[in-house]
Amino acid sequence: MSFQNPVFIPGPTNIPENLRKACDMPTIDHRSPLFGQILHPARAGVQKVLKSTSAEVFIFPSTGTGGWETALTNTLSAGDTVLAARNGMFSQRWIDMCQRHGLNVNVVETPWGQGVPADRYAEILAADTGHQIKAVLATHNETATGVRSNIAAVRQALDDAGHPAMLFVDGVSSIGSMEFRFDDWGVDVAVTGSQKGFMLPAGLGIVGFSAKAMEATKSAKLPRTFFDVHDMAKGYANSAYPYTPAVGLLNGLNTACGMLLDEGLANVFARHHRIAEGVRAAVGAWGLDLCAASPDLYSDTVSAIRTPEGFNATSIVTHAAEVYGVAFGVGLGEVAGKVFRIGHLGSLTDVMMLSGIATAEMCMADLGLDITLGSGVAAAQDYYRANRAERQQDAA
Amino acid sequence: MSFQNPVFIPGPTNIPENLRKACDMPTIDHRSPLFGQILHPARAGVQKVLKSTSAEVFIFPSTGTGGWETALTNTLSAGDTVLAARNGMFSQRWIDMCQRHGLNVNVVETPWGQGVPADRYAEILAADTGHQIKAVLATHNETATGVRSNIAAVRQALDDAGHPAMLFVDGVSSIGSMEFRFDDWGVDVAVTGSQKGFMLPAGLGIVGFSAKAMEATKSAKLPRTFFDVHDMAKGYANSAYPYTPAVGLLNGLNTACGMLLDEGLANVFARHHRIAEGVRAAVGAWGLDLCAASPDLYSDTVSAIRTPEGFNATSIVTHAAEVYGVAFGVGLGEVAGKVFRIGHLGSLTDVMMLSGIATAEMCMADLGLDITLGSGVAAAQDYYRANRAERQQDAA
Amino acid sequence: MSFQNPVFIPGPTNIPENLRKACDMPTIDHRSPLFGQILHPARAGVQKVLKSTSAEVFIFPSTGTGGWETALTNTLSAGDTVLAARNGMFSQRWIDMCQRHGLNVNVVETPWGQGVPADRYAEILAADTGHQIKAVLATHNETATGVRSNIAAVRQALDDAGHPAMLFVDGVSSIGSMEFRFDDWGVDVAVTGSQKGFMLPAGLGIVGFSAKAMEATKSAKLPRTFFDVHDMAKGYANSAYPYTPAVGLLNGLNTACGMLLDEGLANVFARHHRIAEGVRAAVGAWGLDLCAASPDLYSDTVSAIRTPEGFNATSIVTHAAEVYGVAFGVGLGEVAGKVFRIGHLGSLTDVMMLSGIATAEMCMADLGLDITLGSGVAAAQDYYRANRAERQQDAA
Amino acid sequence: MSFQNPVFIPGPTNIPENLRKACDMPTIDHRSPLFGQILHPARAGVQKVLKSTSAEVFIFPSTGTGGWETALTNTLSAGDTVLAARNGMFSQRWIDMCQRHGLNVNVVETPWGQGVPADRYAEILAADTGHQIKAVLATHNETATGVRSNIAAVRQALDDAGHPAMLFVDGVSSIGSMEFRFDDWGVDVAVTGSQKGFMLPAGLGIVGFSAKAMEATKSAKLPRTFFDVHDMAKGYANSAYPYTPAVGLLNGLNTACGMLLDEGLANVFARHHRIAEGVRAAVGAWGLDLCAASPDLYSDTVSAIRTPEGFNATSIVTHAAEVYGVAFGVGLGEVAGKVFRIGHLGSLTDVMMLSGIATAEMCMADLGLDITLGSGVAAAQDYYRANRAERQQDAA
Repeated sequence: MSFQNPVFIPGPTNIPENLRKACDMPTIDHRSPLFGQILHPARAGVQKVLKSTSAEVFIFPSTGTGGWETALTNTLSAGDTVLAARNGMFSQRWIDMCQRHGLNVNVVETPWGQGVPADRYAEILAADTGHQIKAVLATHNETATGVRSNIAAVRQALDDAGHPAMLFVDGVSSIGSMEFRFDDWGVDVAVTGSQKGFMLPAGLGIVGFSAKAMEATKSAKLPRTFFDVHDMAKGYANSAYPYTPAVGLLNGLNTACGMLLDEGLANVFARHHRIAEGVRAAVGAWGLDLCAASPDLYSDTVSAIRTPEGFNATSIVTHAAEVYGVAFGVGLGEVAGKVFRIGHLGSLTDVMMLSGIATAEMCMADLGLDITLGSGVAAAQDYYRANRAERQQDAA
Repeated sequence: MSFQNPVFIPGPTNIPENLRKACDMPTIDHRSPLFGQILHPARAGVQKVLKSTSAEVFIFPSTGTGGWETALTNTLSAGDTVLAARNGMFSQRWIDMCQRHGLNVNVVETPWGQGVPADRYAEILAADTGHQIKAVLATHNETATGVRSNIAAVRQALDDAGHPAMLFVDGVSSIGSMEFRFDDWGVDVAVTGSQKGFMLPAGLGIVGFSAKAMEATKSAKLPRTFFDVHDMAKGYANSAYPYTPAVGLLNGLNTACGMLLDEGLANVFARHHRIAEGVRAAVGAWGLDLCAASPDLYSDTVSAIRTPEGFNATSIVTHAAEVYGVAFGVGLGEVAGKVFRIGHLGSLTDVMMLSGIATAEMCMADLGLDITLGSGVAAAQDYYRANRAERQQDAA
Repeated sequence: MSFQNPVFIPGPTNIPENLRKACDMPTIDHRSPLFGQILHPARAGVQKVLKSTSAEVFIFPSTGTGGWETALTNTLSAGDTVLAARNGMFSQRWIDMCQRHGLNVNVVETPWGQGVPADRYAEILAADTGHQIKAVLATHNETATGVRSNIAAVRQALDDAGHPAMLFVDGVSSIGSMEFRFDDWGVDVAVTGSQKGFMLPAGLGIVGFSAKAMEATKSAKLPRTFFDVHDMAKGYANSAYPYTPAVGLLNGLNTACGMLLDEGLANVFARHHRIAEGVRAAVGAWGLDLCAASPDLYSDTVSAIRTPEGFNATSIVTHAAEVYGVAFGVGLGEVAGKVFRIGHLGSLTDVMMLSGIATAEMCMADLGLDITLGSGVAAAQDYYRANRAERQQDAA
Repeated sequence: MSFQNPVFIPGPTNIPENLRKACDMPTIDHRSPLFGQILHPARAGVQKVLKSTSAEVFIFPSTGTGGWETALTNTLSAGDTVLAARNGMFSQRWIDMCQRHGLNVNVVETPWGQGVPADRYAEILAADTGHQIKAVLATHNETATGVRSNIAAVRQALDDAGHPAMLFVDGVSSIGSMEFRFDDWGVDVAVTGSQKGFMLPAGLGIVGFSAKAMEATKSAKLPRTFFDVHDMAKGYANSAYPYTPAVGLLNGLNTACGMLLDEGLANVFARHHRIAEGVRAAVGAWGLDLCAASPDLYSDTVSAIRTPEGFNATSIVTHAAEVYGVAFGVGLGEVAGKVFRIGHLGSLTDVMMLSGIATAEMCMADLGLDITLGSGVAAAQDYYRANRAERQQDAA
């Protein structure tokens, strides 16, 4: 294995040096007071990253998928109805999970490349006068299509309808990288993982529960033990876990939150936006389109780039890996073969991004696409020069 | 935090240098062929450690508790009956999980300090002519009491009754440290984690499924997504995961299996036995008793040591941590305050163990127990000298 | 400190992941047999990298400068005459060292940008019929100017003159990156360090001594203790050092030699050449010149790039560091302010190099030079595409 | 290699986790301002550890031996006279270095096991009315014999004689572990290394120069380049080095100083004394004697333990390594085969020390010495219990 080049997959991200070291921890007794000195600040840090003052944060040795399951099984019962939009592979998977757990999913089919249709949600919620819908699901950032949805608008739809359904938001590829407002948006369960905005290895499913979601746990009947938030809360009250915690990753999470908050979330989001804009400038220079249908939907963490009809976009990813040792993301599901994805989240600099753009250019040229070498790089350079940050003095 | 002294908790264990480094891995693309080069040998390695030629090994970013849930939810349906013995905190927790998932548990109450009562199982199974019991649960090594149960005898009970129930074995604190024979014992699901015999940080739930258990998954109706073995198997067939894998830990697991198999499982088990015997010699020299009722039940991975009536055993653990910076385990559940536990599994040497024994002596003396300083150490030294291994030339 | 971007200084280089880990070693007893298992293969590995079958390799906890001092003090006496060319800062420093140690240096002043003038050496050696010259010094790769000298030609000059002087070669920034033939070139002392071709942190001065050089140590009268090769040889014979060795770095050196030899030295040199050619293509596209006067002098490890009259080349380096977090090298000595340097040695990929080229472009444009953004990148991309390697499957 | 057990050699010591991580640093540009942020606090930290407000601290990529050479070559000229006592292998080696550098050494032969004879120094200095003696050498802690000398008394001897000779002190195995007072004792050059009290890997020679020593450099004629303190000082003034610095080790040194100063030097020394007293209690319990002739000479960093006549003390060290994987130190020079050494400096706890004592007991018993198992451990336990520290809350 060669670890020399950065990765440009939409997570896990490149891991900063100090997070590598924070995770690489000798064994401590997870029942000793030392553990609380890691756990509690980590939870408090996540709460701040969520822009919440009250969310109950739970951290499972798991992944974002485990976070989805935590959201569902702790708050719902078999036969409950949930509302969800299918606009990409990850929203599709969450819907599938709902169905496998016996929930009744009202699926709003949505073109891949579009965001969650808040207007359609509004109609459905208004029509649901009997309040059969117990939870509304929204994927904040569809990692498969590079589409950011408007969660505030979904909240508005709920409020306009005076609907009491809970709002569950998949923020796996947005939280810590893009604006996320748990409290302001009235989110009831937010779900994320360690390996995206937090820049850590995969291995933690992270959720925030509102008071309303916590209340719902009391009547929820879906079976759960590993993902039970009450067991977890009871453990936390004793600075412990109901089972063996992933101490090193928690230590990393604590450190990661410190890094993000020290940089300032506004700066973190601006940095992601700047790097993403450079990528988008390159895409424009190449004469290609994003999968995301309009600029308001553009994701600052991943760009899914459409290749010309008849070209197999996946070949770019394979070629980049085999010839240049660089990892991009393939298209998934409906857009498999039609897009390739450049991840631009987490621990990344303008300079690193330029090498990713340069590699994509070489691959496309190698594979016969009509790409002028250096064109995307120049467009991104232009953008980065004009919008260059005072260099981050971030600790590492 | 000070990381100088070894830990003597019954897992997570001290982590060998090379496993620290194997886990501390930069991000790779988990959808690239590199990942398969980690995943497949890790699974094959676990299979060998299980002494199986056919078990399907699944590895979840989770813990042993997640492994328990994997066992139940993939093979059973709500209302199914399982047979289980309650002889310690961990068997108790697994029983509790069964109940929370709607299973009907036939609980055999067993004194803490005794093993799984195979004779009682035999009677119950023989009586269950209608084959209501779908699965028999057994905790191979009760970490709370330091008791090893006879799994071969449980198998025999099933065979004698001609009973088709599956045999699920919790090997969390035995597998990789003590003899475990998946195939010979006819185990249907074996459950373990990364942080015990594999000497890794916590974060992986590891299970082996027999063909019979795999067959049972087809009709099992308990809801599952994160822990679904079919999703996992489908992923593995493409050298992938259904979600983001914990690549570093998997790399560590692969390396750990290599270490165990290079040393030779017989040598690994003998080493654990030798170190454990030294601890037991010390306990004898102190005039104390083990929680385990008889030598055939003695665990080679953890000793639960009874302290005199009226003495709070937990104070030893607190004192050791506060005064000497050493971690032992407290008593749990029924034996809370009555025992303290010395873990002696994973990455440990005779020499390290002696410092644990010496520390326990100082603590007991500090707290007023009538312990002759050096007495336990001398007993262990005697044993270790007489049974000294050719020094391990293990790679690090 | 941010460690995200690669460095493009002419050493220390980026350190491969596995060398980081090889160096980061717990303490072992350096008087135990374990140490010999590191020391001996490390020395044998260096010998192979030198393309020698007989050179005595000595490794000091020091740097290349210490290696220079080792060469001089072990083989010469105060008042001895040496022949040396001054064609850059590093040859200048070695000459200065000679003078400070009381040697009589016959300095051949050479334009910075030119190589060691073998023809001039030939004349001087032919004229030295009394064989006053005891040693001929040559800097194989002048790191200050990016100039590679022809050591075979210097050897030829010695042979043509039938001159018995020893040949000392500074290979600090060439060995392990560019062709170096200790035996074929009749080198008597070769000097290098850990932080260039070996891709390790600084901290080792590494020398190879021919039999002739070893013979010279018997009569050499310059005082030496720390750098005494006889003490070192005596230590090595007992798998030990005359003082405390830098065990972790030696372990890293052993691993580094393994990496280089596994890749194959021809492949290593070809890789350096390819990456360097890409940089040179970029320099051409920018309309700039190298400090090195002609292609036969081009270094494959560092390019010193002349900037237009009146422009302060150092400002590029400062700007790159401050604005983009990227490290290039400044001009030194005579060429200070006139050149900036891009290091392209050690652990580097085409992809990483492109980010360095892109950064240099941005800096030059930011500072008002007439540079077309993307032009150098495109030229390098063209070269890399046409000359792409099968991707290195190097271990990490 | 197995890295499980602590080492008990008199340096390099066990390395704390956070120093491992501080040293394991990616490459930075050592000519960038970042480097100054490591260098200057490291130098200031060493000055504080020396208990000096004015010593010029120089740090060479080297070892303590290089520090000795730095002391001599920067301040003396060939033919100069120095006064030195030979009372162990390390004082012997420094004397040898003096002689090899053409100094005239007035050697005071001193029994091994005795300290520097300040009274004899006093006589010689008083008699040297012509002030031929330019420097007085003293080994603060003879690592070979475990003897601490009284440097204040040597100072007194100089003062009483009104003698202007400089005072050079080898504090390699004392500084950072035992009381050392550069200013109060009027030390002119103090020498140490990274791998003892600073708990780092070997690779740094560290010296402090008084104003008087700096003045002496102006007329000193011994040749020097690598170890030239003026080159070094000139570099430091620009936050740089005259050659490539060992950045990671310097970062570690900076962190190490922070650890020592945060703990408080008085606490650090008390900790070393406590651990050493435990070892000495064990030696007493075994009925053995220290090489150090009287308690005022006992070293708190290493104990050299005499074994009975006719017994080969070295066999203990070999046996410990081969059978138990534990490293002790052999006897050197005059006391080879007569003593074995237990190092107890740097990163060590009472608990770790007990495992070393227990191992020594087992080895001695295995080899036929009349040692009661557990006797030394019990004596040390007694001492540690009675003198137990509030547990160090040191960062790791």
